[in-house]
Amino acid sequence: MDVHEISMNCKRTEFVGTAVLDTIGLCIAGVDDTLLKTMNIGTRYHALGLFSSRTGAAGQLTAMDEAVKSTDTEVLSIDFPRDTKGWGGHGNYIVIGGDSVSDVRDAIRTALELTNKYAGELYISEAGHLEFAYSASAGSVLEKAFHARRGQAFGFMAGSPAAIGLVMADTAMKAASVQIARYMTPSLGTSHSNEVILALSGTADAAKEAVLSARQIGLELLIAMGSYPEIPGTPYLV
Amino acid sequence: MDVHEISMNCKRTEFVGTAVLDTIGLCIAGVDDTLLKTMNIGTRYHALGLFSSRTGAAGQLTAMDEAVKSTDTEVLSIDFPRDTKGWGGHGNYIVIGGDSVSDVRDAIRTALELTNKYAGELYISEAGHLEFAYSASAGSVLEKAFHARRGQAFGFMAGSPAAIGLVMADTAMKAASVQIARYMTPSLGTSHSNEVILALSGTADAAKEAVLSARQIGLELLIAMGSYPEIPGTPYLV
Amino acid sequence: MDVHEISMNCKRTEFVGTAVLDTIGLCIAGVDDTLLKTMNIGTRYHALGLFSSRTGAAGQLTAMDEAVKSTDTEVLSIDFPRDTKGWGGHGNYIVIGGDSVSDVRDAIRTALELTNKYAGELYISEAGHLEFAYSASAGSVLEKAFHARRGQAFGFMAGSPAAIGLVMADTAMKAASVQIARYMTPSLGTSHSNEVILALSGTADAAKEAVLSARQIGLELLIAMGSYPEIPGTPYLV
Repeated sequence: MDVHEISMNCKRTEFVGTAVLDTIGLCIAGVDDTLLKTMNIGTRYHALGLFSSRTGAAGQLTAMDEAVKSTDTEVLSIDFPRDTKGWGGHGNYIVIGGDSVSDVRDAIRTALELTNKYAGELYISEAGHLEFAYSASAGSVLEKAFHARRGQAFGFMAGSPAAIGLVMADTAMKAASVQIARYMTPSLGTSHSNEVILALSGTADAAKEAVLSARQIGLELLIAMGSYPEIPGTPYLV
Repeated sequence: MDVHEISMNCKRTEFVGTAVLDTIGLCIAGVDDTLLKTMNIGTRYHALGLFSSRTGAAGQLTAMDEAVKSTDTEVLSIDFPRDTKGWGGHGNYIVIGGDSVSDVRDAIRTALELTNKYAGELYISEAGHLEFAYSASAGSVLEKAFHARRGQAFGFMAGSPAAIGLVMADTAMKAASVQIARYMTPSLGTSHSNEVILALSGTADAAKEAVLSARQIGLELLIAMGSYPEIPGTPYLV
Repeated sequence: MDVHEISMNCKRTEFVGTAVLDTIGLCIAGVDDTLLKTMNIGTRYHALGLFSSRTGAAGQLTAMDEAVKSTDTEVLSIDFPRDTKGWGGHGNYIVIGGDSVSDVRDAIRTALELTNKYAGELYISEAGHLEFAYSASAGSVLEKAFHARRGQAFGFMAGSPAAIGLVMADTAMKAASVQIARYMTPSLGTSHSNEVILALSGTADAAKEAVLSARQIGLELLIAMGSYPEIPGTPYLV
């Protein structure tokens, strides 16, 4: 077998597309019955959408949150593998279901497109990384992943090495009147990533202000470690 | 102390050898009593064989399965560290025991030799990795590691990013009449690796067919992510 | 926003300093109440010191052990993220508290300085890594992290790939009369790192002898894997 005989232009019906951060989107029209039972995600849907990345979680989950909201699909499972290709954070692995294969494919396609946008709030330096996300109105995916309050604005911040994440969390809490949705550390809620993560719910103004304050101090601290971060997209939060 | 005064040609009695994928094989003739009790692997054997790699698990476990079958030794513990040197999978750490030091050394030596062969079904690209394994007749090591049915043929597939692994699993289940031995995800059974893993038991023809079908679609999807995989050996499954 | 407008010379009051191994030291003078409750580290102190590294744990914890001993501060939490920037070990994340902000800052500053020294017993090759630590008299940090007996000498060894760590542990136990304080493997006590770790308590002579014997065989085995280790400092144990 010669792998170089395989084309990069994939013709499989399961293939939907790719995005930045080693993200792939796939779709299974009629998943195998025995496998579906073993997956333990319910047996209502045989049309499954699959989405996973080596690096990043909050941006992709925010993308998937919008994708599920805009289609007749449901999120079935969310995993946070310990990954980031040698860096201190997570990747992601999301399974969604729907009655219609075309709805599922649409949702995955939308999530891939939005991932290219939301990757703009990921900052990776030689020393560590920062990740931010914001949604004006959290849906079922952000609720399932980060216990966000449905319909409220959502803010997210992760910092690595972990100490930076805690100072960002403290700064965010002092910057605006927001509620803690989820708090994660290397030993709590993460897959042992080198991060402190804070997810917030609140009004749009407060959640945005909290995230922007955290981003400013987080970048100052990360850069104080001696190198400037690269950004796999364009920062979009203002 | 100058580390460069130490020779690469190790003369320690504990050293058995090395193999690809940062694999080392070691042997302790008479392990310390207190340490043995703390290890919690039983106290029957004082001759221990140790085997571990930074990258890969199924190939090495298949190698060790044959090694234990062909010697008077027993597998005592199997760990799956989250490793692969920055990639999304596991390494391995295996402890075996025997009444005879020479049996234990033989088993470790055999496992090292076979690892160089079985590494041929590991595919590592810029985006992710795939790993496959096959045994015509699973023994105690594959039973302990992956719940393989002893004496039946065994098939294994792991894909990263995880979504690729699930499509491979679905493809395998549809390709042949096989039973699921073990199903693993970033949150279930793995050490938070970015993989979906399926281990199968069945007839030789069915297990082989399932693995080959999974390999074909897995390679097509991995390559669709934009780079060709490197292979640390020579693919041997046909 | 342009990240290059941010200076590497950080002026934030939270910033204390950096050290080798992507280590950062921070201080929060009055942590947010809600965040403090969520952190679950007690509510006695509002002045928190934060310390974390991408790579290494034992050296930094030994540094923090001395820092806490020499100031009026207390260790509140210790996490072992699975990190080392793609290698098989841990980073660290430590939170300390104190009634006085200046005590907390002093402790973090001391820990940063000592980290540059204790990093001298970390050995990282292409294949794996070794880490050693020694304290003549263990304090509260080493007790909390590794169950060291307070006031006794403390020895630490970690080897990756894991098999090397077990041979080091066996060698240490046979070299001197010491007690096992903590034993860790990829599945036990670690965050799935590719290491076997042994922490020891005993007399100063015995603990030192155990660590030096482990270091010698560990280096021989690591180098037998085909490359010499780099050392991020100067070895200091003799």
